[in-house]
Amino acid sequence: MFLRGAFRALALNRNLTPIAVRTFASKQREVPALTCDRYPVQRGSFAELTDDDVAVFRGILGGADTSRVLTAADEVQDYNIDYLRSVRGYGRVVLKPRTTAEVAELLRYCNERRLAVCPQGGNTGLVGGSVPVFDEVVLSLQLMDTIERIDEYSGIVVCQAGCVLATLEEQVGARGLVMPLDLGAKGSCHIGGNVSTNAGGLRLVRYGNLHGSVLGVEAVTAEGRVLDLMSNFKKDNTGYHLKHLFIGSEGTLGIITRLSMFCPTASRSVNVAFLGLHSYDDVKRTFLAAKRGLGEVLSSCEMIDAASLDSCTRFFGLQSPIDKYPFYMLIETSGSDAGHDEEKLARFLEQTMEQGLVQDGTVTNDSTKMKNIWKLREQIADSLLSDGYCFKYDISLPLDQFYDIVLAVRERVGDLAINVTGYGHIGDSNLHLNVSCARFTPEIYGLLEPFVYEYTSKLRGSVSAEHGIGFLKRKYLHYSKQTEPLRLMHQMKQLLDPNGILNPYKVLPPETPDQSR
Amino acid sequence: MFLRGAFRALALNRNLTPIAVRTFASKQREVPALTCDRYPVQRGSFAELTDDDVAVFRGILGGADTSRVLTAADEVQDYNIDYLRSVRGYGRVVLKPRTTAEVAELLRYCNERRLAVCPQGGNTGLVGGSVPVFDEVVLSLQLMDTIERIDEYSGIVVCQAGCVLATLEEQVGARGLVMPLDLGAKGSCHIGGNVSTNAGGLRLVRYGNLHGSVLGVEAVTAEGRVLDLMSNFKKDNTGYHLKHLFIGSEGTLGIITRLSMFCPTASRSVNVAFLGLHSYDDVKRTFLAAKRGLGEVLSSCEMIDAASLDSCTRFFGLQSPIDKYPFYMLIETSGSDAGHDEEKLARFLEQTMEQGLVQDGTVTNDSTKMKNIWKLREQIADSLLSDGYCFKYDISLPLDQFYDIVLAVRERVGDLAINVTGYGHIGDSNLHLNVSCARFTPEIYGLLEPFVYEYTSKLRGSVSAEHGIGFLKRKYLHYSKQTEPLRLMHQMKQLLDPNGILNPYKVLPPETPDQSR
Repeated sequence: MFLRGAFRALALNRNLTPIAVRTFASKQREVPALTCDRYPVQRGSFAELTDDDVAVFRGILGGADTSRVLTAADEVQDYNIDYLRSVRGYGRVVLKPRTTAEVAELLRYCNERRLAVCPQGGNTGLVGGSVPVFDEVVLSLQLMDTIERIDEYSGIVVCQAGCVLATLEEQVGARGLVMPLDLGAKGSCHIGGNVSTNAGGLRLVRYGNLHGSVLGVEAVTAEGRVLDLMSNFKKDNTGYHLKHLFIGSEGTLGIITRLSMFCPTASRSVNVAFLGLHSYDDVKRTFLAAKRGLGEVLSSCEMIDAASLDSCTRFFGLQSPIDKYPFYMLIETSGSDAGHDEEKLARFLEQTMEQGLVQDGTVTNDSTKMKNIWKLREQIADSLLSDGYCFKYDISLPLDQFYDIVLAVRERVGDLAINVTGYGHIGDSNLHLNVSCARFTPEIYGLLEPFVYEYTSKLRGSVSAEHGIGFLKRKYLHYSKQTEPLRLMHQMKQLLDPNGILNPYKVLPPETPDQSR
Repeated sequence: MFLRGAFRALALNRNLTPIAVRTFASKQREVPALTCDRYPVQRGSFAELTDDDVAVFRGILGGADTSRVLTAADEVQDYNIDYLRSVRGYGRVVLKPRTTAEVAELLRYCNERRLAVCPQGGNTGLVGGSVPVFDEVVLSLQLMDTIERIDEYSGIVVCQAGCVLATLEEQVGARGLVMPLDLGAKGSCHIGGNVSTNAGGLRLVRYGNLHGSVLGVEAVTAEGRVLDLMSNFKKDNTGYHLKHLFIGSEGTLGIITRLSMFCPTASRSVNVAFLGLHSYDDVKRTFLAAKRGLGEVLSSCEMIDAASLDSCTRFFGLQSPIDKYPFYMLIETSGSDAGHDEEKLARFLEQTMEQGLVQDGTVTNDSTKMKNIWKLREQIADSLLSDGYCFKYDISLPLDQFYDIVLAVRERVGDLAINVTGYGHIGDSNLHLNVSCARFTPEIYGLLEPFVYEYTSKLRGSVSAEHGIGFLKRKYLHYSKQTEPLRLMHQMKQLLDPNGILNPYKVLPPETPDQSR
């Protein structure tokens, strides 16, 4: 490792304070209000579940084995509440198919009966998309967790949709491969849910998005049609590329049951640098220098502002490895040769410091220290929640105006907020804007919305960069999508789910046929 | 550069014979038979062009300026014949809009009049998709060649669909970026055509496919609806990801008029190695070693069999830089540090030779020598054409059975063929199987088809890896697509192009509503 100038003093052996993990145990156990009580939403004219329906479900799912059709109130509750505990449905039955044929049979029946269905993966979504809004039947993919094949030559993994991301990561890792996506939720999220929501995450800057990585899907439509859109090849130009309809449509057009994905070769060497900078402009220029200097080994490029880091270090009792600066960057490299990667990183740091872009920093390849640096970025969101209430926005913005919105909002809300912070994946133009306050008030809410969405829309940004639309962001969709695309979305929904039974009240804007029926 | 063992003797200074480029001038000037005379295809019940229609077109496209509505027989002829000169239509008018609004107005009119339309980019397709089959109106994107924006920070290029790939490459190159695709046809193909056909090419192993790289498209439907599906962001999860409907549907669902694309950072250093190997199994194992040893700098991995190289060197008077072997590999690296890349390459070569996988080879970073090595790969197709007639198959197959089909076909056709060769992108599981003979005979045709497609289908391979379906491969589509996906394709076509005017007789199998109407 080559370290010069300010870096020498901040070398590898500097100890980072161990992370004291706090949980929100009490908050997490509280049962949230029913979604239909909290939000203005009307139940669609779907059928109501009867005992006969449950008997049919039991018939399809193994009869005597009652573990695959849950109806006890305490058993179904967890499937009705989302990860953030911000929404709650009152679905009365949870179904756990093991095969695509079972999914098809269940959906055919529900469609004929006009029973609404909420497909559910690991239930880690952040926009209320994965739980019932009313009494939808929950169709959990939990038991569909077979890894069918991992080919170390072509790098292809074929599996059922209910495989947990971390399990896949472990299994492909044993073959010298790496999953092309990495998320904080990987210990519980399902790959089928990741694909259905087009999950982004921390490796996107290196391995691209899921539309590029997913080679094929098998999906079941609302009517129980099994669409075999599987392909095990990176090149396959045989007709319309229909699989993409199911990538990112959040289970409203069909349920993904199996998929194949391309996994890149795993990198042997990883390094993390944590840098201090004077201004956002320096952050932007340092990002460009990283792209050019680190090139093919750059695997993450994150920005953190002072308010974000302050909140995180204070609440979790963490210590930043460098002095205070207005901005910080976390840069990760991964590659096939440790020596080469370290040389590139050292040269990049030396140059950016000489140019006055980077003021200070530390760099490490020790796995514990890397984890601790990553915590400074990953625990920001939780630390802001501790202020009481936190308005969270996940937006994509042009890099020239990337940070301006934080300043604009800070000025706009003034003393009403405890913290107005910006951090996120600058490598993907993705900003997490957070506004924390003691409690939710209509006054601050009115200052923030629709202001943030209008601001984003004017810059042709995206009002949901990676979290999706789900239930909670439907009414903001029009800030990023115009009339014609919205019309085509409705036509797709009508074509693939004519009775609107699949994940109703999600993605499509509220005033739409599938919810007013 | 580190070279050892057999490589030392074959070092960088070895001269490659200059390429003697031959053209097929006489063959190229021959006017091919009309498609409708050569193939069993019936004209749809579309309207026939009238002088009134031409007057309307002139009204839309600038009136007095007649250069944008071509009707003279000698002017429209080139737009009716494909690059391979294998098909010919007799469209009587060529339209050259400059703006999306003009495209929309033209399509609205044609749709009302039931005039069939053939969208055309650079007309470099290999499956007869880019020219009229009968008398379709040709809508050329030639004049829509504005590059609107290149952002060196985010790596995003925004442009009209008619931009030539090589021009884009030059322009983004000046900003330190690289286009994520590279094709032999780049001097004339349009980016809109590349996206419409989901072109693959030589960089796919490194930068992934266009579904990953294209961030947004603007497309006009048959009815003249302008769909603004543009996005300038790598993360944008706002509703259904509709742009993918237009990527790879070959202009049958809408005409792409603008697009935005992510361009990776350009690599400063490039190396090419040309290797000799004893068996296909060694090729496969060397590919794995390259993925692991070269990791993030591997940018191409091609396989060539002895018959392919023999044909190429003989016909073009080229000399192979190494002795004769049953198999050859062309491996390219590109990265941000020449020294690092060369070190990785040298270590990879040393290891694979020590393991007995690679028998011999040469490696260079001299641009002329690299070009000459690439010609040994790129000119194989043309050399085989010189035998008289060449049956060409572009298929994806599992790597374990990748080369078996070449042996099976060789045995099957015996002396009827001059050459049965296999080469292609092993890095993407994409084989080009070529069978050359003195002339087309029903006997050899009957031995090859449907044998090749059935063989591919049994292995769940793809019957068109990167060339697409176009006009020529429609009847083979069912070997890679089952009933339900085909049905959904027809539903999409019906939804987006109810009168079937857009690029009829293409992609969808022959016995379909849009062609029998």
